Amino acid sequence: MLEKADLKKTMIGPEFKQLCGRLKGELAVLQHAVKEKRLPVIVLFEGWSAAGKGSMLADLILTLDPRSFKVYSTLPPTEEERRRPFLYRHWIRTPEGGRFSIFDRSWYPEVSLARVEEKLRAKEAYRMMDSINTFERQLSDDGTLIIKFFLHISHKEQEKRLKKLSADKDTAWRVTPRDWKRYKLYDEYYTAFDEMLEHTDTPYAPWHVIASHDKGAAMAEIYRVMVTSIKSALAAKEKPPLLPEGSPEAGGFPLVRTPKLSDIPLDMTVDPERYKELLKKKQKKLAELHNRLYRTRTPVVVVYEGWDAAGKGGNIRRLVKSLDPRGYEVVPIAAPSKTELAHQYLWRFWKEVPKDGHVAIFDRSWYGRVMVEHIEGFCTPQDYHRAFREINEFEKELYDWGAVVIKFWLQIDKEEQLRRFKDRQETPEKQWKITDEDWRNREKWDQYEDAVNRMLELTSTEYAPWTIIESQDKRFARLKAIEAFISAIQKRL
Amino acid sequence: MLEKADLKKTMIGPEFKQLCGRLKGELAVLQHAVKEKRLPVIVLFEGWSAAGKGSMLADLILTLDPRSFKVYSTLPPTEEERRRPFLYRHWIRTPEGGRFSIFDRSWYPEVSLARVEEKLRAKEAYRMMDSINTFERQLSDDGTLIIKFFLHISHKEQEKRLKKLSADKDTAWRVTPRDWKRYKLYDEYYTAFDEMLEHTDTPYAPWHVIASHDKGAAMAEIYRVMVTSIKSALAAKEKPPLLPEGSPEAGGFPLVRTPKLSDIPLDMTVDPERYKELLKKKQKKLAELHNRLYRTRTPVVVVYEGWDAAGKGGNIRRLVKSLDPRGYEVVPIAAPSKTELAHQYLWRFWKEVPKDGHVAIFDRSWYGRVMVEHIEGFCTPQDYHRAFREINEFEKELYDWGAVVIKFWLQIDKEEQLRRFKDRQETPEKQWKITDEDWRNREKWDQYEDAVNRMLELTSTEYAPWTIIESQDKRFARLKAIEAFISAIQKRL
Repeated sequence: MLEKADLKKTMIGPEFKQLCGRLKGELAVLQHAVKEKRLPVIVLFEGWSAAGKGSMLADLILTLDPRSFKVYSTLPPTEEERRRPFLYRHWIRTPEGGRFSIFDRSWYPEVSLARVEEKLRAKEAYRMMDSINTFERQLSDDGTLIIKFFLHISHKEQEKRLKKLSADKDTAWRVTPRDWKRYKLYDEYYTAFDEMLEHTDTPYAPWHVIASHDKGAAMAEIYRVMVTSIKSALAAKEKPPLLPEGSPEAGGFPLVRTPKLSDIPLDMTVDPERYKELLKKKQKKLAELHNRLYRTRTPVVVVYEGWDAAGKGGNIRRLVKSLDPRGYEVVPIAAPSKTELAHQYLWRFWKEVPKDGHVAIFDRSWYGRVMVEHIEGFCTPQDYHRAFREINEFEKELYDWGAVVIKFWLQIDKEEQLRRFKDRQETPEKQWKITDEDWRNREKWDQYEDAVNRMLELTSTEYAPWTIIESQDKRFARLKAIEAFISAIQKRL
Repeated sequence: MLEKADLKKTMIGPEFKQLCGRLKGELAVLQHAVKEKRLPVIVLFEGWSAAGKGSMLADLILTLDPRSFKVYSTLPPTEEERRRPFLYRHWIRTPEGGRFSIFDRSWYPEVSLARVEEKLRAKEAYRMMDSINTFERQLSDDGTLIIKFFLHISHKEQEKRLKKLSADKDTAWRVTPRDWKRYKLYDEYYTAFDEMLEHTDTPYAPWHVIASHDKGAAMAEIYRVMVTSIKSALAAKEKPPLLPEGSPEAGGFPLVRTPKLSDIPLDMTVDPERYKELLKKKQKKLAELHNRLYRTRTPVVVVYEGWDAAGKGGNIRRLVKSLDPRGYEVVPIAAPSKTELAHQYLWRFWKEVPKDGHVAIFDRSWYGRVMVEHIEGFCTPQDYHRAFREINEFEKELYDWGAVVIKFWLQIDKEEQLRRFKDRQETPEKQWKITDEDWRNREKWDQYEDAVNRMLELTSTEYAPWTIIESQDKRFARLKAIEAFISAIQKRL
């Protein structure tokens, strides 16, 4: 894409002043609509050393209300950041509706600069670029406007600028040996940048290569892109969304067959004495395994879903009993907060992705989207339709990073649920466990059953299959969960 | 405190089983009350290497619902963490009401281990311990229960344990050269620990030194402390709080006199032409200064408070115009979220403390507590009474860390506000700026004036004085704010 940029473009003073004045005025007005319509906006600046990222970004934000944006300067990941999937630190910085996240360098150095400086291999770079495309598509589908600028200058221009900066004692400190090293390898970077631009130039998040020899012309172009992009994003928000066609799809990921809920036999039990013995044995194994996880820096993500009163809490408790408390965390998922609702729905789960070597246990999870949110109408039909693919993509990202992804569905039948509800209601110490909502959900049993069947069908992937935990007998369920946990990890190690 | 611990205490099997069984049962029941009454609980474990912190913590949490707590393993601060005040990373981990934050090591290694390992000097250690006491007192005053365990073993016992761990190939990896180094310097650590325990043993957050030669006896004691502490914290919650006596106080910090609002002359103006000229000059100076801030790693915290329509937004905009966008951030403060309300009120401001070398500009701030929250009854009289001291302590902490703390009060008179409100209402592009709430607040002008006068009187400290910005003429106000900003920083540099 770089060879197409017309680096000779210039703009003379009055022409620039008039055009920019008009565009700035438009942008100043548009930002109120951005706020009012709760449009989330990402603006990112990439480009050559000395191309003027810092100064153009500084210029741009003068037009914006300082309360409406946050500027993120992205540095190479720290040790701590390297312990999470590479998109983690970027995901958590995505803006909520009505706000701008402005990036001075973004996720792109990790697939461009890194190819020259850290010898990142092409295959891995392309995998990461695919992940970036998915990331940007998920945000865009949720309504985020993504504006990507690449500031382009020629090798000769770069030399001129670096020399000029070095010559002035006030600016000399800005030019580092690394800048000169990058200057020398211009051609290598050119290839890396160009491949990156080509591969991540998508309809939902296109690149704008800005010819930056002339700052005036570059700024005018930046303002023009800002104004037209925001305008069309706001216009798109006004149009009624198209109803999704056909059934939801898994997104082309390899699926594993799971039984329908009604076909699952629930008559397994285990003798209480035998249970104690087996539990002790398995927990010992678990403790050893946790040590190995820690030493091999393998992350584990566990999802617990299941009917109300299926025994999630007690099951989790037995599982964590032998884990080192410094290496796991239980994440209870309740209704989303206002801030969480203002972000793409996976944002709040990304925030909880564990460090490598750690275990995160989700007590309820992102699957809420295809169950309660879908049934209660807390998300749109479009959101629901997209969710299966998005979830599979999310879990694939975790898997590719090295995580073991384990998902449990705790199954009981309707009669058993009633027995347990009644028991909770009649036992004083258990009354806090039962609410009116539980009874209301129970009335929608059939709807939930359909939703769960579809969920099992579309999200049981080879890399993150569902395990059914028959939970009519709690003891059986606990043993099975621990066993499945152990074997999933052993398979990966 | 260490010499008082009876290290010979032991417990034989059945005795331990019976006592612990009863205490565990009590704790299991109490945790529901903790949740229901929204009691925030901090439990922290400190002690000697090989004293058993990890295993006792693991044991303790088995009794708790895994959804109700989070375990934090505290390591020495990372590079990134060192760029903020030392309490920052601990403040942001304090629990919300109804939850437990359990610390495997906490803020204490930074004032104990560090004295031996990083040659932290006594004077600095004592200053930090005072900060810790303030931190714990503020949390405790807000209702947080703080339970601190120190696991104590003798030098001989430590040797025995380290040898035993080293001898077994499964556990040998747990013993690091650092453990042996620490073992050798037992006496030095003893002194450091003992000073720490003495100085931070407070009525609101007492230490519990646990004699840990016998794990059974130690665990029983831990359970006993947990149960009695939680019981008395819950009982204290039931009692109606005492009404504060006397007037609020500044907390003994050196105060600077500020004028009463009614005594502030507001007739200053500046000629528009002269304004342009001066603004340009000052902004140039500001840009240079920002470079120096960055290079000297000096953090700056700016607070903007003032009447509605006093011109905060426009003033901030002129101030940031010449700052490098990668080095500052505007933090708009609105009504607190549910999560924020469930924490001590300074928690949400601690989260926004900038990195060193950065500027954080608060558009409204923690002073909301002594203005709107006080007047509208969003906080109790007790909360209000304590707030002045707490705020002064907070700002002192920032100052001691090296920050320049700058606070602006933008003053206009009641007639000018009316003119601006009307102007906003009549100008279509400005209508979004005015709400019914602004009119309602205006009706309480006199109450606000009293509150502001008291605020200026009690929180204008020598290290963080208020600057009155006469804002009847917006141009004058902008120049004065920039000037005050520059001179406050120059004074510190």
